[in-house]
Order: sequence, then structure tokens, then C-alpha cells
Amino acid sequence: MRLSDAQVRDFERDGYLFMPNAFSPEEVRVLADEVPGLFAQDRPEVVREKGSGAPRTAFFVQTWNPAFALLARHPRLLDPVAQLLGSDKLYMHQFKLNAKAAFDGAVWQWHQDYATWHNDDDMPTPRAMNIALSLAEVNEFNGPLMFIPGSHREGRLEAGHDTTTTSYPLWTIDNPTITRLVERGGLVAPKGPAGSMLMFHGNLVHASGSNLSPWSRWVVYLSLNRCDNAIRRHKRPNWIAHRDVTPIVPAPDDCLMAYARERRAAE
Amino acid sequence: MRLSDAQVRDFERDGYLFMPNAFSPEEVRVLADEVPGLFAQDRPEVVREKGSGAPRTAFFVQTWNPAFALLARHPRLLDPVAQLLGSDKLYMHQFKLNAKAAFDGAVWQWHQDYATWHNDDDMPTPRAMNIALSLAEVNEFNGPLMFIPGSHREGRLEAGHDTTTTSYPLWTIDNPTITRLVERGGLVAPKGPAGSMLMFHGNLVHASGSNLSPWSRWVVYLSLNRCDNAIRRHKRPNWIAHRDVTPIVPAPDDCLMAYARERRAAE
Repeated sequence: MRLSDAQVRDFERDGYLFMPNAFSPEEVRVLADEVPGLFAQDRPEVVREKGSGAPRTAFFVQTWNPAFALLARHPRLLDPVAQLLGSDKLYMHQFKLNAKAAFDGAVWQWHQDYATWHNDDDMPTPRAMNIALSLAEVNEFNGPLMFIPGSHREGRLEAGHDTTTTSYPLWTIDNPTITRLVERGGLVAPKGPAGSMLMFHGNLVHASGSNLSPWSRWVVYLSLNRCDNAIRRHKRPNWIAHRDVTPIVPAPDDCLMAYARERRAAE
Repeated sequence: MRLSDAQVRDFERDGYLFMPNAFSPEEVRVLADEVPGLFAQDRPEVVREKGSGAPRTAFFVQTWNPAFALLARHPRLLDPVAQLLGSDKLYMHQFKLNAKAAFDGAVWQWHQDYATWHNDDDMPTPRAMNIALSLAEVNEFNGPLMFIPGSHREGRLEAGHDTTTTSYPLWTIDNPTITRLVERGGLVAPKGPAGSMLMFHGNLVHASGSNLSPWSRWVVYLSLNRCDNAIRRHKRPNWIAHRDVTPIVPAPDDCLMAYARERRAAE
């Protein structure tokens, strides 16, 4: 899959691209069937919400689940990022599954991902990219990502280290700056069925609200980085900011369905 | 103003009615101009969010602000409630202004208002009604009310007294019940410009999410009760559950603009 010139222009202007139905319902099911078992595990890579103890994020899942290991090498996720970053040599900087659990999913404050990659991990430039795959419908009720279009063109903004508001520390942006950016760019919250893909610039300012609905909003995030832009500080654990900078070898496009067939044959 | 037969049927089926642009931008401005000054006051009737200290609710405002005193007698709010409750003799059970402040507005958990009116105030029957007027645009980003259509037909549901999640105690409904009701009725979140009116049954199950946007979502709520349905327990302060059961005498329909003209003339 290759992004069209119009998609590249949209990305450069807005800082994100939304691609509904990039993965089939059958492919999504292969992954979604694994999710309750993943979140049920009691291990450091599974971060929980303050108070409720509901799952918030499962990190590094590509190393402890074979279906997600394939997803971390999936060409439909790798190719558009390689195109926009201008390099086929990409490694996985971070891989996570966010739960935004039904009833208990809490907010993520306004932030840029590159702020964390720079401040915590000493990533030299923002030549890294997030691409997300939703494993459940994203709608107005279950805490969709909110973007300020065009905010990536501001570069890296001043940020404060918020370690108290939620159960995961984040470099967050102050309210007057958000107000100024929203006055210019507005707000958007892309919504769509499970299997939709969303890519966004490391400097795009984003947040997400609480989820009071009975619908969990599971999204897998790949943070892909150019191999020539590897991080230079290993302050955060390897399962949060990965240290293996070997270029990812893409899997075949039908890898998830092939995996499902093999599993059924083995049963 | 009189509700049409179709509106009455919609209300009976869904438990709510949304009426965009019921008040003009000029009328809204008369009220909205007062709001920052109201929330700035340090008095018991102004409840604040945990942590941030941002305003959450200003109670009993009709007794300490002349513009809101007129709103509490406004025929556009009183008439449709009188029609649905089948009585012209109504008194104000509660009057409040919810801030859902920009950046800091926190959630209201799933609840029925009549649960509180019954459990705390010993209101004999649910023959009371909420009618809300928005003093700011309500959109998908600033924490709109979420309703489960038809849930009012369940009657009063089991509820637990939540005194910890937010800064205001509430009788809230458990997650399995919400899941069951949403499977049948779905979710809606009416949105519209400032000046829109929203009325909903005392047994309609509702909640609202956080507000991370730079737009405060100010809404005035009148909880009107039939005078023959007055509460029988005075456990909560008078400024939360009012004790004056004198029937409200409606003001003229143009009272807000007349008030604004008088103010300008006096300046």
C-alpha cells in the first residue's frame, strides 16, 4: 500500500491521516480475541488505572504474544510510515495496546509524543511516527483521540512533567498554549469501525477523554523510528523505550489470517 | 409555547426532548455575562472540582443573582414542564449552574436524578422534571450529557451512594445494569448551540464525561416539582434541596431583554 499525493499533502497540513477499514473484521478478530487474556496478566508491562485497577496499557506485547508479534511487522502499518519518514530502515521504539476500558478508562492529558521521546529518551529528531490500529469501534462515547490539526507545525512545545494526574507519567502542555492552538486549528476526533488505522506526527498535540460507556476502546500503537534516529538515553525500561534498533523485516500482508489458519489446524 | 403531540410522544418513548435555539443569543448573553462573577465567589453554594479547584456547580443562584432569578421564572422553561407534569402548580426543587469547566471539568457518573430525590429528600413520586438551558455551545469535545434513551421506563433502579469518585455525592448505577440498558436503548448525546433547551425525565439514566477542551460547557438546570409532590425529608441543605413550595409565578417571556434594557438605562 502506498499513500497518494493527496494523502501526503493532507498529512503535511493536518499532521494525521485516518484510514477506516484498513484491516478486515476477520483480521481484527484474530487480535481482539487475545486482548482479555493479555490484560488479565499480572506483569510490569500491564499498567492499570489508579483507583479502579482497570487495565490502561499493555506494553511490549509483540514480545509476549505471537499474533501481536506479527502485527508489529505488518506491511500495512510499516509501509505508510516508511514512505512518510523516507526510509525503509525502521525499528520499533514503542509498541503498546491501550485499553481505554469500558466505564473506567481515564483521560490522557494534552501532549506531544516527541516531547517524551526527546526529554526522556534523547531521540535526536522527530523522524519517528505513530501508527494506530483500532481493535474496537471508536465512537463519540468511548474516549476517541482528539487532535489539534496543524499543531505539529509548531515543533516541540514547552511541556511540564505530569506524574500525578493519571497512572502514567506524561510531558503535558499548558492550558493557554492549548487554547491558542485550538483557536487556530480547531479540534477533531476521528471515529470509525474496528480495523481503522490512524497515523499521526510525533509533534501533533493530542489527548483523549474518559470512557464512561460500556464499550472498551482498544487501540494498538506502533511508534516506529528511523534506525539512524535511535534514542541515546536508556532511562526508561526497555519494555517502554525499546533498545533493539535492528531494522524490522516486514511479514507477508496475509500473515494474520495465515496465523489463524495454522492455529485452527493445530487444534 | 406548547409541546406538539409528536414531541410528547417522543418524550414518552425516549425520556428526553432537545430544543435547539430556544433562547436567542442576546438572551443567552445576559446570563453568560454573569457566569464568571458567579463562579469566582467563595461561598458554600459554589462546589469545586477535587484537585484543580475549578468550579463544578453553583447552587441556588436564583436567590443571589437577579438575572438568574428571572430565568427561574421563565415561561419558556416552566410551560413545557407544566404540560408534561400535568400541573401549573410547580415549585423549584433545585436550581443550579454546572460549569463543566474548560480543561478541568470532571465526569458525572451514571445516575437517575429521582434516585437522589427519593433516597435523600423523600420525594413521593417522580412527578418532577429537569429542564436545562445551555449558556455555551455543547459539542462532542466539552463533555455533553449522555442519555440512555428509554431508560426512564425502567422506573427507579438500584443505586449505590458514591461519595468518593467526584466532588459531589451521587446515587450511581452499577456497570452490568448500564450495559444491559445500553444494549437495548443505545446512547445519545444531544449537541447544539448556546440557548438550546433539554428536558429529561427524573428516571432517565444519564452521565457526562470529562471536558479536556478549551471550551467551558455552562448549563443551567431547573428541577421543577409539582407542589403536591413536595419532599418530606430535609436532610440536604436548603440551597441543594429547596424547602419553599410556593407555586412559581411565571415572568413575562421577554423578561431577560427587559432586564438588560433596564440595566443599560441605569448605567
